[in-house]
Amino acid sequence: MLQVRGAEAREVDDALVVEEPLEIRICGRAFSVTMRTPGQDDDLVRGLLLTEGIVRLKSEIGAIQYCRSADMEEDEANTINAQLVGVEVAERMWQRNLMAGSSCGLCGKATIEALAAQIEPVTWDTPVTRTVLAGLPEKLHGAQAVFERTGGLHAAGVFDFAGQALAICEDIGRHNATDKAIGRGLEEGWIAAREPLILMVSGRASFEIVQKALMARISVVAAVSAASHLAVELARENNILLAGFVRQGSLTVYSGQKRMLLDQTSK
Amino acid sequence: MLQVRGAEAREVDDALVVEEPLEIRICGRAFSVTMRTPGQDDDLVRGLLLTEGIVRLKSEIGAIQYCRSADMEEDEANTINAQLVGVEVAERMWQRNLMAGSSCGLCGKATIEALAAQIEPVTWDTPVTRTVLAGLPEKLHGAQAVFERTGGLHAAGVFDFAGQALAICEDIGRHNATDKAIGRGLEEGWIAAREPLILMVSGRASFEIVQKALMARISVVAAVSAASHLAVELARENNILLAGFVRQGSLTVYSGQKRMLLDQTSK
Repeated sequence: MLQVRGAEAREVDDALVVEEPLEIRICGRAFSVTMRTPGQDDDLVRGLLLTEGIVRLKSEIGAIQYCRSADMEEDEANTINAQLVGVEVAERMWQRNLMAGSSCGLCGKATIEALAAQIEPVTWDTPVTRTVLAGLPEKLHGAQAVFERTGGLHAAGVFDFAGQALAICEDIGRHNATDKAIGRGLEEGWIAAREPLILMVSGRASFEIVQKALMARISVVAAVSAASHLAVELARENNILLAGFVRQGSLTVYSGQKRMLLDQTSK
Repeated sequence: MLQVRGAEAREVDDALVVEEPLEIRICGRAFSVTMRTPGQDDDLVRGLLLTEGIVRLKSEIGAIQYCRSADMEEDEANTINAQLVGVEVAERMWQRNLMAGSSCGLCGKATIEALAAQIEPVTWDTPVTRTVLAGLPEKLHGAQAVFERTGGLHAAGVFDFAGQALAICEDIGRHNATDKAIGRGLEEGWIAAREPLILMVSGRASFEIVQKALMARISVVAAVSAASHLAVELARENNILLAGFVRQGSLTVYSGQKRMLLDQTSK
């Protein structure tokens, strides 16, 4: 590739972030296809199963295996199947990009109400401190291996309230990075068991990011950029502290500000 | 919301970017649901119809109308229907998140080959100049109305080779912003008619962004951030000039560099 700075141009051989489709099958039936960065595909599947509300427990997930022919290299496998144990996928979930519109028309409010019928708000008491939140971007960025070389990957990390990283994952998609981190936690047993937790994402906090946190029983969502109005509404309805523009020591708290302790910086 | 800078906190009333679901129906049948920023929904639908390969001409699109009951305000309508004229949606397209895996397994190469069977590479001869490309981010950002207030929107613009903006659109999703700009061009008659064109997006250049450009016969794709390896492969196969990290006078050309004129900056 050619790198151009002002009127100067030179050939460089920079690394490119890898993007490959992954077909996710559940019990042998195609569920979805996502464009993802290969790696931690099993965690991605676990996380998706939890955040889509298909499973709630690790024990409901059976074997997760690539589907590949005998002559195929392992890194060529872009189809993966998860078995379920004692749970089934509701028929409407097979067409998950077609949410059912309510009779009054599809809207954000109806979407939030539909979620409310499916899951309870998060409950938590311990406050989270400003300094812990403000320190997360550096930890997230510090752990990003590929970003340094390509500048092309999103990151999502799950942290405890002391600011300790439990999992930090990268992917070309913010949603996939989030599912990978949550899936790791489900496998290791700290998601939906140890509370309260913080999800920190690079980029924005959309409705779907807060939805994933809610399904994984995560109390705090922090994002490097802005939050959408629907993300804020969902967070408020479900007792989630939502902070955006978490960068350079500043942050904007959209929801749950009473749970944040405005401690002084120790440094 | 609470704005926290260091240990200082104050209540502010900043604008939030709006995110609402939109159910897109084609000939009355649900096709997809996307989370989008309301506005230019008709252009979004036009663009999607073109970039998904369902139509190639403006004349193949009939009426585009919101589906709403008599007591519903116009801005509450989140379901929209497009009629088609003389074309049909292939059955596989109704489950568009389930791409057909080839027998050798799903992979980026197979995805690119499937596209090649559907559409020809872009043909163009006029070179694009470095100064035009380097000047696009400022034009894109300058036209962003909402971003200034919320920091939460992606932008996509289509420009001619003189750097003149033909359409600049915003959305919470980069893909939606791209479809809106392309849809505007289909409606106004300059997409797929006037060549060559440039698509500039905030954020990264993924496979899907280059795919949309290809379907709309756009010759050059420029992005503020990195391009993925699959975006680069698709651009190379289809004669598209792909530039990433287009910012502050610099850029990285991944594909089609022979079509770029390294002119001197005039200022």
